[in-house]
Amino acid sequence: MSYNLLKGKRGIIFGALNEMSIAWKVAEKAVEEGATITLSNTPMAVRMGEVNTLGEKLNAEIIPADATNVEDLENVFKRSMEVLGGKIDFVLHSIGMSPNVRKKRPYDDLDYDMLSKTLDISAVSFHKMIQVAKKMDAINEYGSILALSYVAAQRTLFGYNDMADAKALLESIARSFGYIYGREKNVRINTISQSPTMTTAGSGVKGMESLMDFANRMSPLGNANADECADYCIVMFSDLTRKVTMQNLYHDGGFSSMGMSLRAMTQYNKSFDEYRNENGEICYG
Amino acid sequence: MSYNLLKGKRGIIFGALNEMSIAWKVAEKAVEEGATITLSNTPMAVRMGEVNTLGEKLNAEIIPADATNVEDLENVFKRSMEVLGGKIDFVLHSIGMSPNVRKKRPYDDLDYDMLSKTLDISAVSFHKMIQVAKKMDAINEYGSILALSYVAAQRTLFGYNDMADAKALLESIARSFGYIYGREKNVRINTISQSPTMTTAGSGVKGMESLMDFANRMSPLGNANADECADYCIVMFSDLTRKVTMQNLYHDGGFSSMGMSLRAMTQYNKSFDEYRNENGEICYG
Amino acid sequence: MSYNLLKGKRGIIFGALNEMSIAWKVAEKAVEEGATITLSNTPMAVRMGEVNTLGEKLNAEIIPADATNVEDLENVFKRSMEVLGGKIDFVLHSIGMSPNVRKKRPYDDLDYDMLSKTLDISAVSFHKMIQVAKKMDAINEYGSILALSYVAAQRTLFGYNDMADAKALLESIARSFGYIYGREKNVRINTISQSPTMTTAGSGVKGMESLMDFANRMSPLGNANADECADYCIVMFSDLTRKVTMQNLYHDGGFSSMGMSLRAMTQYNKSFDEYRNENGEICYG
Amino acid sequence: MSYNLLKGKRGIIFGALNEMSIAWKVAEKAVEEGATITLSNTPMAVRMGEVNTLGEKLNAEIIPADATNVEDLENVFKRSMEVLGGKIDFVLHSIGMSPNVRKKRPYDDLDYDMLSKTLDISAVSFHKMIQVAKKMDAINEYGSILALSYVAAQRTLFGYNDMADAKALLESIARSFGYIYGREKNVRINTISQSPTMTTAGSGVKGMESLMDFANRMSPLGNANADECADYCIVMFSDLTRKVTMQNLYHDGGFSSMGMSLRAMTQYNKSFDEYRNENGEICYG
Repeated sequence: MSYNLLKGKRGIIFGALNEMSIAWKVAEKAVEEGATITLSNTPMAVRMGEVNTLGEKLNAEIIPADATNVEDLENVFKRSMEVLGGKIDFVLHSIGMSPNVRKKRPYDDLDYDMLSKTLDISAVSFHKMIQVAKKMDAINEYGSILALSYVAAQRTLFGYNDMADAKALLESIARSFGYIYGREKNVRINTISQSPTMTTAGSGVKGMESLMDFANRMSPLGNANADECADYCIVMFSDLTRKVTMQNLYHDGGFSSMGMSLRAMTQYNKSFDEYRNENGEICYG
Repeated sequence: MSYNLLKGKRGIIFGALNEMSIAWKVAEKAVEEGATITLSNTPMAVRMGEVNTLGEKLNAEIIPADATNVEDLENVFKRSMEVLGGKIDFVLHSIGMSPNVRKKRPYDDLDYDMLSKTLDISAVSFHKMIQVAKKMDAINEYGSILALSYVAAQRTLFGYNDMADAKALLESIARSFGYIYGREKNVRINTISQSPTMTTAGSGVKGMESLMDFANRMSPLGNANADECADYCIVMFSDLTRKVTMQNLYHDGGFSSMGMSLRAMTQYNKSFDEYRNENGEICYG
Repeated sequence: MSYNLLKGKRGIIFGALNEMSIAWKVAEKAVEEGATITLSNTPMAVRMGEVNTLGEKLNAEIIPADATNVEDLENVFKRSMEVLGGKIDFVLHSIGMSPNVRKKRPYDDLDYDMLSKTLDISAVSFHKMIQVAKKMDAINEYGSILALSYVAAQRTLFGYNDMADAKALLESIARSFGYIYGREKNVRINTISQSPTMTTAGSGVKGMESLMDFANRMSPLGNANADECADYCIVMFSDLTRKVTMQNLYHDGGFSSMGMSLRAMTQYNKSFDEYRNENGEICYG
Repeated sequence: MSYNLLKGKRGIIFGALNEMSIAWKVAEKAVEEGATITLSNTPMAVRMGEVNTLGEKLNAEIIPADATNVEDLENVFKRSMEVLGGKIDFVLHSIGMSPNVRKKRPYDDLDYDMLSKTLDISAVSFHKMIQVAKKMDAINEYGSILALSYVAAQRTLFGYNDMADAKALLESIARSFGYIYGREKNVRINTISQSPTMTTAGSGVKGMESLMDFANRMSPLGNANADECADYCIVMFSDLTRKVTMQNLYHDGGFSSMGMSLRAMTQYNKSFDEYRNENGEICYG
C-alpha cells in the first residue's frame, strides 16, 4: 500500500546489502512512496552483494563508496544530483561495523586502531556525509537526514562492545549537526533507535537469538522488524515531520520504556524451576 | 494536500475549542486524511465555543463530556462507536487546565484542592479515558492513543507551575498503560511534547510571548506551530508507526536538545549593551 | 565508622517503620554522623511499629503526623525546631503507599479514589512538606531535602501499578520546587532512585523476590541495600553536595544504565534448556 | 574542614594544570581528606605549568604522561603503585582538548584528523586509562573512577563544537566499562557533568563569559565552582557511594533540569527594551 508520501523527492540510501537489510526495505518503500533514489555501499559490498538486483528492480543507480572517505562521499552526492536531476531531499545512514567485535576482542582488551575504525565507520562517517552534503549545498531546504541507532547508546548490553560507544557518538553527531544544518537550511537530522533486528550484521552478534527473544518478551508490542522500521523512516523523510530534529526516536515496541514485563519475567522464572521448594520459593542453597 | 493516511479509520478528538486549538487542526487533518471522527469537549466549551462550527464542517458529531467523569467518557466511546459504525482507531487527548495557574497561586502557595483538580483534569483524565475504552473494548487492535505534553515535564520553566507536574504524570500514565494495552491489544500510547503554542490556553500563560520568542530562537527550526503538530499527530495515528509506543516524542524544532543557540545568546547579550566597556566586556559593577 | 559529616545539623526523618526501613537506617547514620533529629510517621505506625525503640536509642522525639495533612506537617516542623533548637538542615521523605496495590486492583481497573490517595500519600505529601517548611521558613539556607524514588518513574515494571505514576509525580515535584526553593534560599531538593529493597513495603510487592533476583543479576554491583542507601542520603545531606539540585540520583548498582547483563541473560537462557536441540539452538516448535 | 573521607586511600589525579583547574582542587581536597596521591599531566604541561608547586605542596609525585599513549599510562599506574605502596583506590580523568576548537574550525568544516585527536585525547584516553589499570589489576576492589563531563553531551551549545561529541563518547565509555569493571571487581565508574567553569581550558571557549552568565541565571543555585566540584568528586571517591556506577551526575546548581528561569528571562527581556511599545509588548516590525 502506498500513500505517495515521498512523491517527487530524491534520496540516497547508504548501507543496503541484501533483503534482510533495513536499508534495503527503506529503498523499496521510498520508491513505492514516489521517490527516486540512488544506492551506495562499499565497493566490496557492491561486488559481492545482491545490491545490484535491488538497483535494477528500483531503477536506482548504485554508487560505490567508502563512507569514511570524503572524496568518495563527494562523488556520491555529485553523481546522485546528476542522476536524480536536482538536490537531495533525504538521506539514510545505515552503516556500522566493529573490527573489535569481528575479531572477538572483548571491551576490556580493545585494540585501539580497531576502535578508531569502529568509530570512523559507524559514527564519524555520518558527520563526513553531512559535512560533504552541506559544503556542496546538496540537500534541499527542509530535507531530512536519518541514521539508524540502537539502545546500547544509552544502556549497556553485554557483547555489544565498542559499538555502544559508536552509537552514542553517532547520536551526538545527529544533535550537533542538527543544530547547525537546521538553523541554516531547515534540514532536520535524527536517529531511529531500532529493536534488535536479524539482519546480516545483527546475525553476527553473539547471543543475538537470546537477546532478541528477551527484547521481544520485554516489549509490549514485540520487536519491531525491518519492514516496520522502513515505514518509520519513510514517515521521517516525509513533509509531515518537518519540525522534528535532533531527536533519537525509539522504534522498539516499547522496549526502551520497560523495566520488566510479565512475559519476560515469567520466562526468566522458569530458569529457577529445579531450584524451587514445595512452596514455589527459590532455594539457592 | 492529502495522503489518505487514515482512510477508513475512526477517531475521537478531545479538546478542540477554536481555530487556534491544536485539537481543531488535528480534527481537520484527520478528516482530510480519510478518517471519520467525533469531537468531545466540556458541556461549557460546547455551549460557548466554536466547536459546533467545526462539527458541521467536518460532519462530526459533538459529544459533550467532562473528561474527569467516567460515565461521561463511557458515553463518548459508546456514542462514537454507534455514530462511526465500529471500534475506534485513534484518540487524541488535548486537555489541560490548572486552577492554581488561573487563580495566580504560585507554586509555593498551592491550594491542594486545586492541585488535585489540575492533576485530575490534565493527567488522570487520560487514564480514565483509556481504562474506559479498554473495559468497553472500544479500541481496535493496533489502535493509537495520543496526548499532548510539554517539555516542562522534564525541565522547570518559571510560571508553568503545577502544570509541569501534571504533564509528568500524564507522560507516566502513557508509559504505564502503554505497557498493558500494548501487550494485550497491540494498542500504542504516546505523548507528543509540543513547542509552546499560541492557543487560547497558551495565551493565558504569564510571559507567554517572551517564552515563545526565547524558544523560537533556541530551536534551530523555530517553534513548531499547531498545523505542524497536527501533521505529526496524523503520522502517529497512521499504520506507519505501529511499533512506536510508550514514548514522549518531542515536536519542537529541536528545542529539547539545545543547551544554547547562537541566536538566543545574541539576543540575550543585547540586554547587557549598556553595561559594556569599550572592549565589549560586561561591566556589572 | 563516622566522619562527622552532619555535625551540628538538625534533621527530620519521615517514614521509619522498623529495622528494615531505609528511613530507619538513615536516622541511625544521621545521628552517628553528628546530627540531631526528630522522627515522624503516621499515628498508626507510631502506635504499632517499633519506631519508639528507635526514638529512644537515638534520643529522637517522635512526632506523629499524617503526611497528607498540612496542619500535622506544620506541627512536625514547629515541634522539631523547638526540640532541636533551631531551623532544620535536612529532611527525608520516605513515604509511599498505594491502596490499589493493596487491594490488588490492576492498572487497567484502578479505583480513582484510591489513585487519588496513592498520589496524595506518595507524592503530593512531598509538596505539602516543602510548602509548609518554606512558609514557616523552617529550613536553613543550603538545607537539603530528599525523597526516595524508584526507576519505575522512568520504566514500566509489571505489578508496580500506580506507584510508578506516583514516583514520576514525586520526581517532578522535586524539580519544580527545587527551582523555587533553590533560587530563594539555596535549599536543594533531590530524589534518590534506589534498587528494589526488601523493606516491609517492598516485601508486599507481588513477585518481589524474582524482581530482586533479576535486578541483582542485571546490576554490575548488585542491588544496593538499605544501609548503602542510607550512606548516600548522608552524603546528600552533607555540605559536600551543595550544588546538586533538581536531580534524580540512581543508587542501584548500575541497573538504570543496563540493557542486558551476561549474568541475567545466562539465567534467562536456562529457562529454555529443555527446548534446545543438539546444537544449542532454541526450538520453540 | 576535613572529614577523613579518604583516609588511607591512594589516588591518581590526571589533568591538574594550575590553581584554576578542577583537578588541582580535587588533588588538594583528596590529600586534606587523608589520601595519598600522584599527579599526572602531559610532559609539556609538567614543564610549563605550575603543577610542580602542587606536587611539592601535597608531597605528590608527578608522573608525566601522554594520556593517549598506552605505555605512558602503564607507567603512571606502575609508578603510582610503587610510590603509594599499593593498589589504587580512585582515579580522576580531567582531560579534554579539541584542535578543531583551537584552530577555530567550525563544526561544519571539521578537519577529520583533528576530530580524531579530539576524540582520542578527550574520550578514548579514558578507555585506555581504565583498560591499562584493569589489565595491571591496579585498582582495588570497590575503587572509584571519575571523569569530568559537560551537559553538551546531551544538549547542543553553539561553539562547543566537537567537544560535545567527545563528551558523549566519554560518558558512553563510563557506562560500557562500568558494567565490566563493576561485575568483575566492584569498581565503579561515573562522570560528573559540571557547570561551565572558568578554568584555563574554559577561558578559551568563545563567548564563555556570556555563557557563564546565562547558565548562572538559569541555575537556581547558580553555577557550581571548581571548589564545589572537588567536594563532589571526594564524595564519589569515598566509601559512601559504593553502589553508584555508570551514572552521569549533574553538578550544576540545577541547570540541567531547567527550561527557563525567571532571572534569565528577565535579563533576556531587557534586550527588547527599545522595541517595546507603551503597553510593554514587543514590536518587532
